[in-house]
Amino acid sequence: MTIQGPAELFARRLGIDTYREYVVFLRSESTVCRAEGLRALSRVRVACGQREIVASLNIVHGDLIGDRQAGLSESAWVALGAAAGDTVSLSHPEAVESFSAVRRKIYGGRFTGAELDAIVRDLSAGHYSSVETAAFVTACAGDRMSPAETLQLTRAMVDAGTRLAWHQRPVMDKHCVGGLPGNRTTPIVVAIAAAGGLTVPKTSSRAITSPAGTADAMEVLAPVTLTLEHMRRVVEREGGCVVWGGAIALSPADDLLIQVERPLDFDSDAQLAASVISKKVAAGSTHLVVDIPVGPTAKLRSHEAAARLARTLTSLGGAFDLRVECLFTDGSQPVGFGIGPALEALDVLDVLHNAPTACALLRARALQIAARMLEIGGRCVAGEGPARAAHLLASGAAARKFESICDAQGGRREPRRANYRKDIVATQAGAVQAIDNRRLGRVAKLAGAPASPSAGLVLQAQLGQAVVVGQPLYTIHAQSPGELEYAAAYALRNPKILEIGSP
Amino acid sequence: MTIQGPAELFARRLGIDTYREYVVFLRSESTVCRAEGLRALSRVRVACGQREIVASLNIVHGDLIGDRQAGLSESAWVALGAAAGDTVSLSHPEAVESFSAVRRKIYGGRFTGAELDAIVRDLSAGHYSSVETAAFVTACAGDRMSPAETLQLTRAMVDAGTRLAWHQRPVMDKHCVGGLPGNRTTPIVVAIAAAGGLTVPKTSSRAITSPAGTADAMEVLAPVTLTLEHMRRVVEREGGCVVWGGAIALSPADDLLIQVERPLDFDSDAQLAASVISKKVAAGSTHLVVDIPVGPTAKLRSHEAAARLARTLTSLGGAFDLRVECLFTDGSQPVGFGIGPALEALDVLDVLHNAPTACALLRARALQIAARMLEIGGRCVAGEGPARAAHLLASGAAARKFESICDAQGGRREPRRANYRKDIVATQAGAVQAIDNRRLGRVAKLAGAPASPSAGLVLQAQLGQAVVVGQPLYTIHAQSPGELEYAAAYALRNPKILEIGSP
Repeated sequence: MTIQGPAELFARRLGIDTYREYVVFLRSESTVCRAEGLRALSRVRVACGQREIVASLNIVHGDLIGDRQAGLSESAWVALGAAAGDTVSLSHPEAVESFSAVRRKIYGGRFTGAELDAIVRDLSAGHYSSVETAAFVTACAGDRMSPAETLQLTRAMVDAGTRLAWHQRPVMDKHCVGGLPGNRTTPIVVAIAAAGGLTVPKTSSRAITSPAGTADAMEVLAPVTLTLEHMRRVVEREGGCVVWGGAIALSPADDLLIQVERPLDFDSDAQLAASVISKKVAAGSTHLVVDIPVGPTAKLRSHEAAARLARTLTSLGGAFDLRVECLFTDGSQPVGFGIGPALEALDVLDVLHNAPTACALLRARALQIAARMLEIGGRCVAGEGPARAAHLLASGAAARKFESICDAQGGRREPRRANYRKDIVATQAGAVQAIDNRRLGRVAKLAGAPASPSAGLVLQAQLGQAVVVGQPLYTIHAQSPGELEYAAAYALRNPKILEIGSP
Repeated sequence: MTIQGPAELFARRLGIDTYREYVVFLRSESTVCRAEGLRALSRVRVACGQREIVASLNIVHGDLIGDRQAGLSESAWVALGAAAGDTVSLSHPEAVESFSAVRRKIYGGRFTGAELDAIVRDLSAGHYSSVETAAFVTACAGDRMSPAETLQLTRAMVDAGTRLAWHQRPVMDKHCVGGLPGNRTTPIVVAIAAAGGLTVPKTSSRAITSPAGTADAMEVLAPVTLTLEHMRRVVEREGGCVVWGGAIALSPADDLLIQVERPLDFDSDAQLAASVISKKVAAGSTHLVVDIPVGPTAKLRSHEAAARLARTLTSLGGAFDLRVECLFTDGSQPVGFGIGPALEALDVLDVLHNAPTACALLRARALQIAARMLEIGGRCVAGEGPARAAHLLASGAAARKFESICDAQGGRREPRRANYRKDIVATQAGAVQAIDNRRLGRVAKLAGAPASPSAGLVLQAQLGQAVVVGQPLYTIHAQSPGELEYAAAYALRNPKILEIGSP
């Protein structure tokens, strides 16, 4: 039933970021709460004009919220398209029908395609609470999804969002199975591949828990928030782009599932594959090179696990006519000197410009991926990719292509250097035996990355390198003295971020 | 690491009721958020004096929260024992170690006793987010728990909270497997059993989604928020009590699990049994009578399902030396005339006082339960319980015992009648063929129950009864004309709450 009469409430933007979960805040004494018997964590349907959402209810005691107000989380405010002065009406939501299929799955059933369609539709529409989403994710985890179910889930995820279509063929894409900071190969790969004549309409993400996402680093060099039409013009003119995918709703259910899967840390090949492949199919890609770093602190820790994931990705991609090629790479250390948007962007420029000081690891990794892309994209015969990619880079063709892409995206930008720096030095002599990627990322975040684009750190030593006492291991960059001190204090308390062993 | 220096934040009580989930609200521009790379839904450790909790983070844009403030949800404020002017320090929490056992369970493993101990300890301490709790509940649902695991879970739940011990033996208890409004047998059963010489230290709950809990109805007649010491004195003097269990932390994990299980509606015998038995074992009970209503709109819909649940309860109770007796009762309609705290209390008094207008169904149900309690408690031989219970009620012994209990709990109270009433009448002639318990409960809540104790409704017709056009089917009671109209409007839009068929 709809709540009417005395209970027409004024929408109030509270500015509370609950990520994707819609939350409505009502005063405990309000007529609506009393009359409807609403209590904390109830689900409530909120309508504003023609739009409506289902939100979780937080009850407020005291005067944070007025009696005639409905406070809205940022996500709810945006989803309702609310404006100051708007009123909202509240009602009890219908039970989420599709969740009964989740219950059956928990009792050992199999999902049908229609059930997965309905679940993903409800998820994308925000009808699942985070608790219901967690139950769905758990019900699918632990190899409980058959290959047929994974395929149907992926298809449902693609169908629930925007799907791009390109005139050109083939349409190339790349993906890296996370876990390594500073692995900023994408802009280099796109530049080489586009210079080699391939179509690479790359959409990238911003940092979620890392010090920088590809979109954050690229934004230091050119605008990345483009409309779909602008993105199309860039790709038609230059063959490639590197834009922020967040502006385009590709597989929106994926974002919601990842948000719950990440804290739960359920490491299921099926979920990872559905996530990656749904995004790429929605982006209209026909060929995908996947970089799978393998190493003790990377996501994949054994070659067996990496090979199993590769098989799942390849077979799932095949069902959508997406050709998937997996590269197993060294995941034992960062793949660049810099960690943080601008510092990673500078690494990218150094490689593109063939600077003598460019990071050899980053250069090699980007060439490896670009080479495979040129081969499977039909721009050279198998085995000749490495030479072709190296030539495109060394000749300056990739650098010129990259500049054209930046111009087409809205204009080249100069990376800025941070004002404050501090070296963290070796306190004993020896060789660098291990690098703790996770803590290294923490230092960069404490220094201000990614919110301060020029903040982060630059590695001065690599795995296996011999160092003497007092030699800089890495340099922290920050835009304020407070953040510099803050990051340095953490670094000094954690001397084994770069572990030095007997030489 | 602990966040120090510029980031000593002032605790601010926001009054936001997030139920049991601890939430901390920080401004997006705050040094802490930037420096720590904190974002929406991160988990944060919050310390205040000697206490600390792990909370979910909501990021706030704009000026709802000051830059030097940490807004706290009501649950977080209370758990930290914070006071105005207190400062809090924030840090990244350690990963919740016990959750790795949940991950293994999802991959098909079995929980060990030590793992379940650790999980329940972390749950009770508030270290699990609602998403993690949902994953645990899902991992245990659908018959995935072996009897041994269910036993260990129950033991862990008991051990995680207060455990009462009584000098007297036996210690009697009752429980009703929900689903029926107005099933207010508890005060009558306790009065009869205590009058018959049994020890019945009954702890009851308040309404969560229903129009009244036993504690709400009892509170109309006497105080129910007693300290443990006060409760002991009542039981020592009178043999029984009916108090609110919320003041005593019996099986605190149960409250947290129920909060997630209810919206997910996972109907697992193992979870239900662990919940019921852990509460009763923690309460120090030795004998338990369980009322299991069976009917089309009750929780248990078939006798097979009821019998299966009874076997699980009996066998699990046995492992804790708790003797469990299950009674299968008629769950097709409410077991009293009134629905709402005061209206149910009036039904209770009418039965205790042998009023000619007392509800026969309620009287019969209470006698049935009390009779079984007297038999298994050794106060009469098998088969003589019904006569003994009827005598204790008819003689006035139960009524006198109830008055003494009320006095011992702090003094008898008179139920108040609501100021506003409205009859909902039959619009066609015929017999009452079905009663929609769920919608009937909704009407009582719309009228103001349980927040307004005298609000609710009184049934004027029962299943099978013949009615004529214009005859009252039920009467809505409310404390304000607005609430009365509100409930009546819903009732008129739902004419089949009492369904009338051909006579």
